[in-house]
Amino acid sequence: MITVLAGGVGAARLLAGLVQVVEPASITAVVNVGDDLELHGLAISPDLDTITYTLAGAINPTTGWGLVDESWQAMDTLHRYGGATWFGLGDRDLGTHLFRTQRRADGATLAEVSAEITAGWGLRLRLLPVTNDRLRTMLTIVDEPGDPPIEVTFQEYFVQRQHDVPVTAVRLEGVEAALPAPGVIEAIREGDVVVIAPSNPIVSVGPVLAVSGIGEAVAERRHQVVAVSPIIAGSALKGPADRLLRELGHDVSVVGVARLYAAVAGTLVIDEADADLASQVEDCGVRCVVAPTVMRDPRAAADLAHVVLGST
Amino acid sequence: MITVLAGGVGAARLLAGLVQVVEPASITAVVNVGDDLELHGLAISPDLDTITYTLAGAINPTTGWGLVDESWQAMDTLHRYGGATWFGLGDRDLGTHLFRTQRRADGATLAEVSAEITAGWGLRLRLLPVTNDRLRTMLTIVDEPGDPPIEVTFQEYFVQRQHDVPVTAVRLEGVEAALPAPGVIEAIREGDVVVIAPSNPIVSVGPVLAVSGIGEAVAERRHQVVAVSPIIAGSALKGPADRLLRELGHDVSVVGVARLYAAVAGTLVIDEADADLASQVEDCGVRCVVAPTVMRDPRAAADLAHVVLGST
Repeated sequence: MITVLAGGVGAARLLAGLVQVVEPASITAVVNVGDDLELHGLAISPDLDTITYTLAGAINPTTGWGLVDESWQAMDTLHRYGGATWFGLGDRDLGTHLFRTQRRADGATLAEVSAEITAGWGLRLRLLPVTNDRLRTMLTIVDEPGDPPIEVTFQEYFVQRQHDVPVTAVRLEGVEAALPAPGVIEAIREGDVVVIAPSNPIVSVGPVLAVSGIGEAVAERRHQVVAVSPIIAGSALKGPADRLLRELGHDVSVVGVARLYAAVAGTLVIDEADADLASQVEDCGVRCVVAPTVMRDPRAAADLAHVVLGST
Repeated sequence: MITVLAGGVGAARLLAGLVQVVEPASITAVVNVGDDLELHGLAISPDLDTITYTLAGAINPTTGWGLVDESWQAMDTLHRYGGATWFGLGDRDLGTHLFRTQRRADGATLAEVSAEITAGWGLRLRLLPVTNDRLRTMLTIVDEPGDPPIEVTFQEYFVQRQHDVPVTAVRLEGVEAALPAPGVIEAIREGDVVVIAPSNPIVSVGPVLAVSGIGEAVAERRHQVVAVSPIIAGSALKGPADRLLRELGHDVSVVGVARLYAAVAGTLVIDEADADLASQVEDCGVRCVVAPTVMRDPRAAADLAHVVLGST
C-alpha cells in the first residue's frame, strides 16, 4: 500500500509514474482541497481534478490543467455579459463541476463524489480529499507597493494575479474544524510507504499536514515517509513555491525543504542538480537520496517512482 | 408603451414580431418564472432565456430553445459520471446560467441580472421577470396508471417526462409571498396596450397573473388588454396546453381560452381556423378578432403584431 500526500501538477505527474510501477488499486492519494473554490455557484476542486485528468490521460497538455480537446463556449457567453472569466472553465471540464455541485447538493461528501468521478474515468487508484469539510488557503498579499495588505483566496492569488504579488502570510480557513476524510488516517498508518509529492510545501502539502491528526500520523510513520523536493537548484519547476518560501522566511533550496519536512519525513529525494547539498540535507536529520527528479515524460515519472519506492 | 405578459416560445415569437413594428425600447415583457429551476447548482430561467435568445436571433432553430451553434461537451462529461442529463444545457447556454448564478450570489435581483443579460445581446426591449422572488409551478401527476399521484416541478413534468403524463393539479409554490418585480405593475398600468402572449394559459400566463396585484392590475386595464389564443382548432401548436386544459376541466378551444381570460382581457385574437367560434367567444363578453395567428416566420409574427396592436 502506497499513500501519497498530494497537491496538483507535481503530484499528478508522480502518481502517473507510480501507477506504472505498482498496482494502481494499492495507491491512495490524499489530496489538498485548500485550493478549492466556489465560482458561478459551482464547487470546483482543482487539485483533485488535475490528478484525475492526468491519470486518465485526459489532461490538457498545453495548459497543464483542465481537459484535452477542450472548448470555451461557456466562457465566451460569460464574457458577453462581462462575467468573471479569470478562472477559465472549459466546456468539457464544466461537466465535472456540474456533477460535483449537484452531488454535494444531494448530500454526498466530497470524498464520495471524488470516487464517483475517478470511477467515471476508469481509474483504480483511490483519490481522497484530505477532508470533506471546508478548508480554504487564504493569502495575505500586497497588490501594489504601498497598498495595504489584503487577504485573498488561493485562486485569486494563483490564477487571477498569476502569483505575481508578494505574500506576507498564509492562513488555513476552516482548519480548526476540519476532520480528515474517512480513510485518510488509516491510509497514512497502513501505507508501506508514505510519499510527500513534489508539491508546494506551503500551500499544497501544508494544508494536508495541517488537518487535525494528519501531521501527527505522518510524523509517527516518519521512517516510512519519503518526500520529493519541489525545489530544484533553488527554484520551482512550476508555480510560486520558490518565491513563496523566500517571502515567508524559508531557505529556497533542498535544505530549506528538508528543514520544513524534517519532523514528518525520514527521507528526502533531491535532484542531481542539488547533489552538493546532500550532506546539508542529512545535517537536518533527513536521509538524502539523489536522483533525477524532473518528470519530463511518463518514463521519467516511472523512474522517479522507482527511486521513491526504493528509498525507505 | 406596450406591455406583454409572456411565457416562453409563443411569447418570444410574438415579441419578435412586435419589435419589427414598434420601437423595441417601448416594449416591456413581464415574464413567467414558474418554470425556473436550480440544477447542478445553477439558477436557470428558461422562459427569460428563450425570449432573450429569440430576440437576439440566436435561438437554436432545431430545438426552439437554447442557443444556435451549440455544443454539448459539458453534458458529455456529466454523462460520463452518470449525472442528470435530462435537462440539456449546451455549452454556450451554460455561460448564461453561470453568469446568472454568480450575480444572484453577489446579491443582484433576477430583474437586474435579466437586464444585464439582455444588454449583453444588445436588446433594447425591457425584460422583467414577473417577480424577483421564488415562484415555482408544481404539477401533480400520475406516472403510470395506478401509481399514487406525485408532485413534480414544471421541468420534471415538461422536459424529464416530456409532458406525457396526466396532470391532476397545478400549484404555484411561493405565490403567497412573491411580490411583483419593480416596474411590473407600472408597466401594466401605463401600457397603451397590454398583450397576453399566446403562451400556455395555465402554466405560463397563470403564474404571471397570480402574483400579488398583477391579476387585479390587468383586470383594471381590461379594455386595453388583448390576448392571443394559444389554442388553434382545438389544439396547441406546441407543448401541452391542450391536454392540460382538458385535464383541468377547461374547454380546449378558443371559447375555453376566452372564458379563462374574460376577467382580464377585453379582446381575444383567434386564428382564422376558429372563425366559426367568434360569436361564442363574444358571448363570453370578450371582443373577438379573427386573424392568421400561426407565426411561421418573422413576417407572420410582424403581421400578427400589427393585428394585436390594432385590436384595442
